[in-house]
Amino acid sequence: MPVKLVDRTPDAYGYPLLIKQLLHTPLATAPDQEITYMGGRRHSYRTLRERIGRLASALAGLGVDAGDTVAMMDWDSHRYLECFFAVPMMGAILQTVNVRLTPEQILYTLNHAQADVVLVNAEFFSIIAAIAPRLTTVRRFVLIEDAPADTPPPVDFAGEYEALLAAASPDYEFPDFDENAKATTFYTTGTTGLPKGVYFSHRQLVLHTLAVAAGLGGAARQGRLHRGDVYMPITPMFHVHAWGLPYVATMLGLKQVYPGRYVPETLLKLVRDEGVTFSHCVPTILHMLLVHPLSKVIDLSRWKLIIGGSAMSQAQARAAQERGIDAFTGYGMSETCPILTVAFLPDAALDGAPADQAAQRTLTGLPLPLVDIRVLGQDGAELPRDGHSVGEVVVRSPWLTQGYLHDAEASATLWQGGVLHTGDIGHISPDGWLKVTDRIKDVIKTGGEWTSSLQIEDVVAQHPAVADVAVIGVPDAKWGERPLAKVTLKPEHAGKVTPHEIRNFAAKLIESTGVSRYGVLLQVEFVEALARTSVGKLNKRAMREAQGRE
Amino acid sequence: MPVKLVDRTPDAYGYPLLIKQLLHTPLATAPDQEITYMGGRRHSYRTLRERIGRLASALAGLGVDAGDTVAMMDWDSHRYLECFFAVPMMGAILQTVNVRLTPEQILYTLNHAQADVVLVNAEFFSIIAAIAPRLTTVRRFVLIEDAPADTPPPVDFAGEYEALLAAASPDYEFPDFDENAKATTFYTTGTTGLPKGVYFSHRQLVLHTLAVAAGLGGAARQGRLHRGDVYMPITPMFHVHAWGLPYVATMLGLKQVYPGRYVPETLLKLVRDEGVTFSHCVPTILHMLLVHPLSKVIDLSRWKLIIGGSAMSQAQARAAQERGIDAFTGYGMSETCPILTVAFLPDAALDGAPADQAAQRTLTGLPLPLVDIRVLGQDGAELPRDGHSVGEVVVRSPWLTQGYLHDAEASATLWQGGVLHTGDIGHISPDGWLKVTDRIKDVIKTGGEWTSSLQIEDVVAQHPAVADVAVIGVPDAKWGERPLAKVTLKPEHAGKVTPHEIRNFAAKLIESTGVSRYGVLLQVEFVEALARTSVGKLNKRAMREAQGRE
Repeated sequence: MPVKLVDRTPDAYGYPLLIKQLLHTPLATAPDQEITYMGGRRHSYRTLRERIGRLASALAGLGVDAGDTVAMMDWDSHRYLECFFAVPMMGAILQTVNVRLTPEQILYTLNHAQADVVLVNAEFFSIIAAIAPRLTTVRRFVLIEDAPADTPPPVDFAGEYEALLAAASPDYEFPDFDENAKATTFYTTGTTGLPKGVYFSHRQLVLHTLAVAAGLGGAARQGRLHRGDVYMPITPMFHVHAWGLPYVATMLGLKQVYPGRYVPETLLKLVRDEGVTFSHCVPTILHMLLVHPLSKVIDLSRWKLIIGGSAMSQAQARAAQERGIDAFTGYGMSETCPILTVAFLPDAALDGAPADQAAQRTLTGLPLPLVDIRVLGQDGAELPRDGHSVGEVVVRSPWLTQGYLHDAEASATLWQGGVLHTGDIGHISPDGWLKVTDRIKDVIKTGGEWTSSLQIEDVVAQHPAVADVAVIGVPDAKWGERPLAKVTLKPEHAGKVTPHEIRNFAAKLIESTGVSRYGVLLQVEFVEALARTSVGKLNKRAMREAQGRE
Repeated sequence: MPVKLVDRTPDAYGYPLLIKQLLHTPLATAPDQEITYMGGRRHSYRTLRERIGRLASALAGLGVDAGDTVAMMDWDSHRYLECFFAVPMMGAILQTVNVRLTPEQILYTLNHAQADVVLVNAEFFSIIAAIAPRLTTVRRFVLIEDAPADTPPPVDFAGEYEALLAAASPDYEFPDFDENAKATTFYTTGTTGLPKGVYFSHRQLVLHTLAVAAGLGGAARQGRLHRGDVYMPITPMFHVHAWGLPYVATMLGLKQVYPGRYVPETLLKLVRDEGVTFSHCVPTILHMLLVHPLSKVIDLSRWKLIIGGSAMSQAQARAAQERGIDAFTGYGMSETCPILTVAFLPDAALDGAPADQAAQRTLTGLPLPLVDIRVLGQDGAELPRDGHSVGEVVVRSPWLTQGYLHDAEASATLWQGGVLHTGDIGHISPDGWLKVTDRIKDVIKTGGEWTSSLQIEDVVAQHPAVADVAVIGVPDAKWGERPLAKVTLKPEHAGKVTPHEIRNFAAKLIESTGVSRYGVLLQVEFVEALARTSVGKLNKRAMREAQGRE
């Protein structure tokens, strides 16, 4: 295309989209706004900026250079926020380490990402002790200590975080550089194979921040994020930038609350004492919060909560609603920075019956600005947006990982045909609502058709005795596969209901709603607990393996 | 900087920031949303997309190619919105022509921008008749006709807009290209010298759109734009993209109302009948709307109105407030796409006395995300943000013109030192509020000090007999310059008040508020009307010339 590019005057500032640029507005307009760690330590954005400078100076003193990788192992903290900014602002790469992985997996990710420096909370001494001798690239360790550690340090630390900052200059000059510079990297926690590294540039993170702020800010009545909100993450900062919200909250100059390790009681107290109004978490955490006694006596009616990671059930949406919480679905994954869609309820749902609201709250949502999301049939052609044609969800947006680290083959599969393949199946309604019905690999192939395990789970979950449920396909001579529901019961119902009763309840609902033709072949089995991955998602691969499949 | 750039998998989509990408979300989520022209013609976003395709096909049929310039001469219309998208989406450049300039100036801008095709509303036949023989680059004209023209066409038209669209295919394939491609160009309407061309890239317009949506969306209580709003521009689409709001409104999928030529009665009726909730205009238009009898009987309490172009007086802010309108200041200029800052009122002002609110509503505002705005002293050093140190306002943001078209010297001056010089003077408060106190060239130099003409205007405007006021500096043997207020009176006060009375009123206020040390040297003169530029701004250059200065 012979387009004409704009002429740039030699002195004109081209304004690369760098993470440091997110700080201009909050530092100008909210310099005294508060950031607190667990309700104890608290400081202003002015101090945040100063500490970002000190951290960069300290890391530079340890030999960290542009292009180097700095790995972080901490719970959600003000320190993590400082790393979110200081490390990429130096031109270095922040590796956010999933501390819930096994030591062997953590070893793999640090070596694979070629981490140069690792910041370690003393709580993870045992992990470091187990892997330190086998780390191939790490040159220095920095100690993070909330309280004096009760075990001796497993490695020779170059210094302690607060002491290093205190000794360093706040006046680090953060340079300009290419906006396509790598800013962050971390590893997906899929259920198959080795962890896979994804990575994001400064440009991608700035654009994600702007689009999330524009998308959430534009909400007419529900699910809105604004400059009067108080933000607290409840999806770990090591997991897809805590959904990118710490960057958004900082750009908007919000009060921010970092809760450390997630303890339901602590989280609820922080909501109460710090006036938290905006968070995000996975359904498992929401469940833990809702069953905690404290949640019954705290006013949660100002709390907005994006639910993602896996699907929220309608029963859970209703339970949250009854507690006054505005819980609604967000959709994305490690590969997508992550947010792609958010369930902003239309007036009809907000004004309608609570049950209708719950249904809409569990839908996958509407695309953020710039997100081009489509559903493809098995032939790769786009399916109509008719609310029922189910196919693979593919996406384009300005903030998708451009590949997997050092894995050309998986990268090519991810981006086959120039669109990112989410690995999810779902459908899109005429008014743009995406409904993810399942992971492609979790779909149950029965009688030559695809049956969504999630849809059946939603039906089973409606039985009052069911605490949690996972549906998988198990081999069947006649049907190919048939659905099996693994169910945990609420304690008060244990021994008072049979698998058969629940099966009949579900089969009746399935027949009456027509949700799935072959759903009636369902079998039900009671279990003590459901297998989960390190980030709390159902591990259906492990369940299938236990059933002799895979 | 040896940063590491992200590795892009060959098939990965890099996602250039192109104007076409703004359409993904509204077409998916609001395909049936309405766009109306003057409350008569109305169609959906689906139709908008189809017409964008048709317009591109039609223009291609007329020989328009990537890199060509397509000039538009129309009032605010659905057609203009179509041009905002179709022309740049083809890789061509949209020139938005200021139809209020003189024919000679319009001739100059079309030749200077090397326009290839001109779309002309029949209302502007006389302009075209006057300049057509001297257009050096225009190859084709397209006719726009709301009603059959009553004069013969002054040139040979290649076709009429609606007929061309009807005959063209909606299935134009909009290609990808470099996001730094020029998308729009237009000419500043300064008071000195020839008009100067500014230009904006796809990337700049997309980033402006996102940041405006994020900034307005993030407003906690007042000045918020959201997906439930109904948008109508009252700053012309030829003038800095109607402040960029048509792009924002489209991205958010809002109902949009295009009012044609600005007629106060029509505008007010559209607000009433179409439920308009979000607009923007200059103070002169706000004045015309507030004095119109219809404004007294229409419910304007849902109307949010950004006021810019020149400063809103506190008296006007109060008058708007009394009518229930949420009027607040936005700041920017042709060179800045335009929006840089918006006056989002803090809780203290919103909960406080109406008078305090009015003061804050007339402040220049808080910076949008990514906007880095500073005030420099005469030595070029940054001044403290203390709320009173006055200096030149300079800015960096990702959406500033990178120069003036074919004018290297003016471009270098604009960008001297790597910051864009706004030509305004002002100060910034510790909490980020910018207050522009004057144009550098309108500052009155009295007794060796700078006195702001705008501050004195604000004082004079508080006299109940004053309809409008402009303060300029006039030569004075003793003081260098002294301020002269040119005043128009409200009709009911004419003949009942003397210049001397108003001078004394103002001098007393100036003394008691300490707003300006030399303001008390003020002289007052009554005039029939104030000289204005083509876009309705006070033309102080003309006034000074009439006083024998310049």
